[in-house]
Amino acid sequence: MKNFDADDIIFAPATAWAMGAIAVIRVSGKGCIDAISPDFKTVRKDHSLSTRKTATATYGNLAGLDDCIITIYRGRQSYTGEESLEISCHGGLQTVKEILDYLLSKGFRKAEGGEFTLRAFLHGRMDLTRAEAVNELIKSRGETAKAMALDRLNGSLYRRIEDIRALVLSVMGKLEVQLDYSEDEIGEDLSFPEEDIKSAIESIKRLSSTFSAGKLYSQGASVVICGRTNAGKSSLFNLFLKQERAIVSPIKGTTRDFLEAQCTVNSIPIRLYDTAGFRDATEEIEKEGIRRSEALAENADILIYMTDASEPVEDREYTEKDNCIKVLNKADIASLESFKAPFDSYLRLSVATGEGFNRLCDILTQKLESTITLPSSGDPVIENQRQKDNLDRASGALELALKHNQEGLPVDIIAPDVQEALLALGEITGEVTTEDILDNIFSNFCVGK
Amino acid sequence: MKNFDADDIIFAPATAWAMGAIAVIRVSGKGCIDAISPDFKTVRKDHSLSTRKTATATYGNLAGLDDCIITIYRGRQSYTGEESLEISCHGGLQTVKEILDYLLSKGFRKAEGGEFTLRAFLHGRMDLTRAEAVNELIKSRGETAKAMALDRLNGSLYRRIEDIRALVLSVMGKLEVQLDYSEDEIGEDLSFPEEDIKSAIESIKRLSSTFSAGKLYSQGASVVICGRTNAGKSSLFNLFLKQERAIVSPIKGTTRDFLEAQCTVNSIPIRLYDTAGFRDATEEIEKEGIRRSEALAENADILIYMTDASEPVEDREYTEKDNCIKVLNKADIASLESFKAPFDSYLRLSVATGEGFNRLCDILTQKLESTITLPSSGDPVIENQRQKDNLDRASGALELALKHNQEGLPVDIIAPDVQEALLALGEITGEVTTEDILDNIFSNFCVGK
Repeated sequence: MKNFDADDIIFAPATAWAMGAIAVIRVSGKGCIDAISPDFKTVRKDHSLSTRKTATATYGNLAGLDDCIITIYRGRQSYTGEESLEISCHGGLQTVKEILDYLLSKGFRKAEGGEFTLRAFLHGRMDLTRAEAVNELIKSRGETAKAMALDRLNGSLYRRIEDIRALVLSVMGKLEVQLDYSEDEIGEDLSFPEEDIKSAIESIKRLSSTFSAGKLYSQGASVVICGRTNAGKSSLFNLFLKQERAIVSPIKGTTRDFLEAQCTVNSIPIRLYDTAGFRDATEEIEKEGIRRSEALAENADILIYMTDASEPVEDREYTEKDNCIKVLNKADIASLESFKAPFDSYLRLSVATGEGFNRLCDILTQKLESTITLPSSGDPVIENQRQKDNLDRASGALELALKHNQEGLPVDIIAPDVQEALLALGEITGEVTTEDILDNIFSNFCVGK
Repeated sequence: MKNFDADDIIFAPATAWAMGAIAVIRVSGKGCIDAISPDFKTVRKDHSLSTRKTATATYGNLAGLDDCIITIYRGRQSYTGEESLEISCHGGLQTVKEILDYLLSKGFRKAEGGEFTLRAFLHGRMDLTRAEAVNELIKSRGETAKAMALDRLNGSLYRRIEDIRALVLSVMGKLEVQLDYSEDEIGEDLSFPEEDIKSAIESIKRLSSTFSAGKLYSQGASVVICGRTNAGKSSLFNLFLKQERAIVSPIKGTTRDFLEAQCTVNSIPIRLYDTAGFRDATEEIEKEGIRRSEALAENADILIYMTDASEPVEDREYTEKDNCIKVLNKADIASLESFKAPFDSYLRLSVATGEGFNRLCDILTQKLESTITLPSSGDPVIENQRQKDNLDRASGALELALKHNQEGLPVDIIAPDVQEALLALGEITGEVTTEDILDNIFSNFCVGK
């Protein structure tokens, strides 16, 4: 369980736990500057941390452990909205380890994942949609997901939710008037605000529908390359990775029989699998591998079935699937047969020359994007299940309000439906929140954020 | 080849290339602040980068790519000794990638490994021993190597070399007097400075002898656990790793037959190998693995031979080696036989309970430290082959000077020997240097430092 009082001083490495030129360690909490200042020997006598201004960087030696730069932030000017500092030290793990031990020895507490951002939220520095966007921004792969997260960090989702909330609040206001006064007193002009509710539902549903796009661009899709041995599957696998060298991370296969790697194709993050040829199992271990490959193919978002154009074969259990892209490799040395049905409908490709590869990427992207609702330009996009669940809860409650009205139920039955919608919307931004909700959100964060 | 003019603006990520809460990108070179300032939209209007003071951190949005904090350093106050800035952005790889692309689009150049430190050296911010210490500090594992590197970064080695150089310079001065004037003119009191040269040689050799210690603590030693199957080798392997959880990084074996991991034992970095049981090969692949294990054992710095105390066996081809530590595992369920020769000389251990493990670590450390010259307290320790080579070159040249003098050769033959020693010492600190030397040194550095 997270610590929701922000009275103590917390610390954590903010940069990745790996060797780098420098590493940054964050410390936050009232009194942290004065606590560290006596242990920080600066070259210039007038550069004592205690007397330095907010947002200034000071060079010195910290507790004999390292020569580093400490940037201090006073009061509300920091990320967390409280007094804090950042230690920029030499990026060796031993140095980082010793500084973390030193901070522990000062009586500070190791921060839990997301605790700095939690404090920023608790101190009113950002609402929940922005806090979640921080984490989504860091974890984003591909420029679309990153741009969407940055957009939310800049408040696009917050503003949209607040607009909808304002509309639902006005509905609530109208209902409350009807609750407070009898029908005689208010007259006909204060009718049931059906149109407002419908409009709110539509806005909420439009926002909720962006989830499919947000999820695709943030979490990506699985693409399995299958086909017989020597079709060129592994070469295609490598071609995908080479195109995206910068953010490729190949992951070793858990069996000898398939390989997994991460890449992005037209900004969509892809988990790419290279499978063993399906048909040529001899040993027991290999058979197990092939069973796994078949299970992968079964669950793939997209299947790329590849065959050799010089000797094309078709395995219908794969090629007849809706999510299958059929590819003829070695198109440069194609046989006559490969121009006849069924192979005339195959995408012609040469992994060796790269010809046809961009077309394959485009088809792959189109197939994936055909499964989602593309958001209107300028609209915020959500990628977060919690947000979607609350949006659906809000629209569901408002639909219930409409239904109850149509059934002729009185306003005091309908008002709680609208209240429920307000609660759900408030949970998205954090206007309404509980420790459980916060705990759930911030436990997803990486440490140091 | 490195760029030794420092006229252009260079950039590189300074933190590890992996996801973290934040990442830091360094930019250095005259004009970099004004070049970036127009693209950096700050919240406060008076916070334009161009007008901010040195060593201040400013929050804003960089080129629409991310909300980040930029700390600027003007003139000689920076690490590189030139105008520079550090961009602290959200630590997602996509964000870092986009900012690097942006910096490239500004006409800045990607920094080569070590180029920031090279500039610091070129601008006279640090001598070569300190520059090398920066890299050694980052790469250090274990507190001893780290403390030694920090000591060098703080100038201990530089000062020691300068002391020796001053002594050799005084020798050179005395020889030059003898060169300039005839024997009659200077008289008997200006004799050959033999004692000074001997004293310099002694100091240089003492410093050079610290290399064995520096190397052990920085580069570490290989320790191979061997013995028959079921002796508990893998459990011991895991026990070593668990003790050093914080900086353990297990590396997958290149074959199925041995495992490698990094850990530190009493501050000595250890490459630890867990081998397959030697004797029970059946398949061809397994036999190959065992051949590899045997080769590992052959080349190990320390061999830990382990046998099961309930059924002890001795494989003499291992136990008779000087670098072998013999261990009886499962000492808690030892057989009577295990108390008799040769097993009475074995270290008794229980991997299950951890009993005897600290003793094993101490014996391991003692065995390794017995192979090195332990440095006197307070003495700088070198871990760097280049420094050792130059020290040995200097002492060799001075010994030649002594020899030439004993052979009755004239001062104009001896002076070049002393000059050679001065050159070698000057190369260590960088007083004397060539582009080749610099290129060699800084090409070892990680990017961003």
